[in-house]
Amino acid sequence: MREVAIIGAGSTEFGELWDKSFRSIAVEAGLKAIEDAGISGEDLEALYGGNMSAGRFVEQEHIGVLISDHAGLSGLHLPSTRVEAACASGALALHLAVLSVASGWYDLVIAAGVEKMTDIDDDIASDLLVSSVDREWEAICGATLPSLFALMARAHMQKYQTTEEQMAKVAVKNHHNATHNPLAQYRREITTEAVLGSPMVADPLHVLDCSGIADGASAVVLCAAENAKKYTDSPVYVKASAQASDTISLHDRRDITTMDATVFAAKKAYQRASLEPLQIDVAEVHDSYTIAELMAIEDLGFFDKGAGGIATGEGQTEIGAKIAINPSGGLKACGHPLGATGIRQVTEIVQQLRGEAGKRQVPKAEIGLTHNIGGTGGTAIVHIFAV
Amino acid sequence: MREVAIIGAGSTEFGELWDKSFRSIAVEAGLKAIEDAGISGEDLEALYGGNMSAGRFVEQEHIGVLISDHAGLSGLHLPSTRVEAACASGALALHLAVLSVASGWYDLVIAAGVEKMTDIDDDIASDLLVSSVDREWEAICGATLPSLFALMARAHMQKYQTTEEQMAKVAVKNHHNATHNPLAQYRREITTEAVLGSPMVADPLHVLDCSGIADGASAVVLCAAENAKKYTDSPVYVKASAQASDTISLHDRRDITTMDATVFAAKKAYQRASLEPLQIDVAEVHDSYTIAELMAIEDLGFFDKGAGGIATGEGQTEIGAKIAINPSGGLKACGHPLGATGIRQVTEIVQQLRGEAGKRQVPKAEIGLTHNIGGTGGTAIVHIFAV
Repeated sequence: MREVAIIGAGSTEFGELWDKSFRSIAVEAGLKAIEDAGISGEDLEALYGGNMSAGRFVEQEHIGVLISDHAGLSGLHLPSTRVEAACASGALALHLAVLSVASGWYDLVIAAGVEKMTDIDDDIASDLLVSSVDREWEAICGATLPSLFALMARAHMQKYQTTEEQMAKVAVKNHHNATHNPLAQYRREITTEAVLGSPMVADPLHVLDCSGIADGASAVVLCAAENAKKYTDSPVYVKASAQASDTISLHDRRDITTMDATVFAAKKAYQRASLEPLQIDVAEVHDSYTIAELMAIEDLGFFDKGAGGIATGEGQTEIGAKIAINPSGGLKACGHPLGATGIRQVTEIVQQLRGEAGKRQVPKAEIGLTHNIGGTGGTAIVHIFAV
Repeated sequence: MREVAIIGAGSTEFGELWDKSFRSIAVEAGLKAIEDAGISGEDLEALYGGNMSAGRFVEQEHIGVLISDHAGLSGLHLPSTRVEAACASGALALHLAVLSVASGWYDLVIAAGVEKMTDIDDDIASDLLVSSVDREWEAICGATLPSLFALMARAHMQKYQTTEEQMAKVAVKNHHNATHNPLAQYRREITTEAVLGSPMVADPLHVLDCSGIADGASAVVLCAAENAKKYTDSPVYVKASAQASDTISLHDRRDITTMDATVFAAKKAYQRASLEPLQIDVAEVHDSYTIAELMAIEDLGFFDKGAGGIATGEGQTEIGAKIAINPSGGLKACGHPLGATGIRQVTEIVQQLRGEAGKRQVPKAEIGLTHNIGGTGGTAIVHIFAV
């Protein structure tokens, strides 16, 4: 298997993009990645697109072909594949794109993620989110996605004395980071008091503990590592790409204060990259809810189990501290267009490892990690990158 | 890249399975394939599931994990991937499963296809079908899937003097074949007169020119060819797996009497297998509408362009004639649960190449082909198999 490199990355602004369509944002992100790679769209050999639920959001399936066609590439007749693993669809697209190049099937491919969530009523969007967990055993019984994460938060608080203030700190930090990210949905500071004073969504999670419904798309161009320098002076190498699963339902887990899918995917990724957690300089983790970031930084091995809240409260996850977590602003402040997030995380790591992240640049960032989950952790996908 | 073999195959009955759920039919097919392979579910290293639109049919996404979990495999934490390319989702799952084994990432994986279409109103199901083509430029203007295939039929009739009787012959042949297929939705003979006398859906396509809305699931187990004989005495080897695309919209095609995606996928497949079209003994092709089978047997190179109607009228595609097309009964008589079809076709070829197809056995079947398309041919996937 060949090593794989990312030679281009691009993203749309994330937010309520009412003047843009599903297909137009997908193509916008793709063109940015292609331009960044310095290639022509006609050089591509395959497309992998991650999308969770365009079937319901915009009543459109057959997404892979829709995008390659709308990008003007139909004449290439290239394999266009849509993959789905709920909110982890973006990272799954990258995972398969990496495999397709590593195996030698293709030399130059694009992986994209896209979701258009704001063209339908909010209550339909909320119902759509629960289709990422078990419709028959969770959603039908009234469970919503925030309520399931609230259960995890309560359990974590009870088992590890995690506090609402520590969770709020995740939101405060990520909003601060996003003030330097021109593509983020929420580019303003918030305070712990504001988080704790915001309306309760599912106790103990307030509205400011939750990532926002958004539109957005992101894309990266990949090639064999041995060819990367032909295209760019600053390739970012994919050191590991690992996918794992767990029960789709929370009530079937052995322990709801940890996500085993993350633990297994991370273990595989560290093995393949021959790296230890503490060698990671910067990570984009799946903070769809603030508690999710605390669980992630523990399950990824950055902190001992149960110590995520304290570490965050102490500022150890800020840019320039022990390990920079979500320098982009994360899902919390960038917004979380479901299928796009997994690739958006990668575009941030690419910028960080290239040293192009401006005021949110993590000092001496040489090794980066992305962590993207589906539902409440039924799927987890971990990628490790290095320059 | 390693060669890949199929060592197990299984399918549910296709039809209106009102007493079974989406997840239960997926698991039923998987268990049959696993039992057929003589392995334990715990031997699996990854799952690839093809499904078009469970998000709308059963309001459930995150399909890959749902299935592996419901199959009792959550403890394995295995990568579970759902892919979608409209009606070609099944073949796409196989395509990626083949890649995952050929590349050496995994040694033993399962590829499944599943769709549960009959739990919602027929008018919603009809609208769902159009999400496989361009919602904004075709569906919104009133185009339905039958109406788009009717346009292709009219153009084919005008350009090649294809007749309604020749199209009807596809349905008559496939229904005849299905009388010997215990898993087919429609296991009864029909006549040309019955087809031509059945209600018009979209002129010139009558209701008996169309495949049926159905529930169903199918699965195959794959391993590296070098290991296949450890599991079975009758492995079926994957000689080629090729995917191609075209415009998603019919009105953007250079010629609507041919499907370029099929032409390109077939060309790649024949090259990889080092075979010519006329070396194929048996083929399962995508006859969602009778005209689609005529176009497929031309575009796949079995007959000259425009000669599909005459060849079918002469009986050249019957079992025992020049080339056996759709000995299973095809989508027309088996029913067409969208995401399941691409794998169901493969289970038929496996049975044929093993010589286990009973009264519908194609004599001396040694090389088989499957052809699965999405929408009106925006995606085409061709597989070639041999014993």
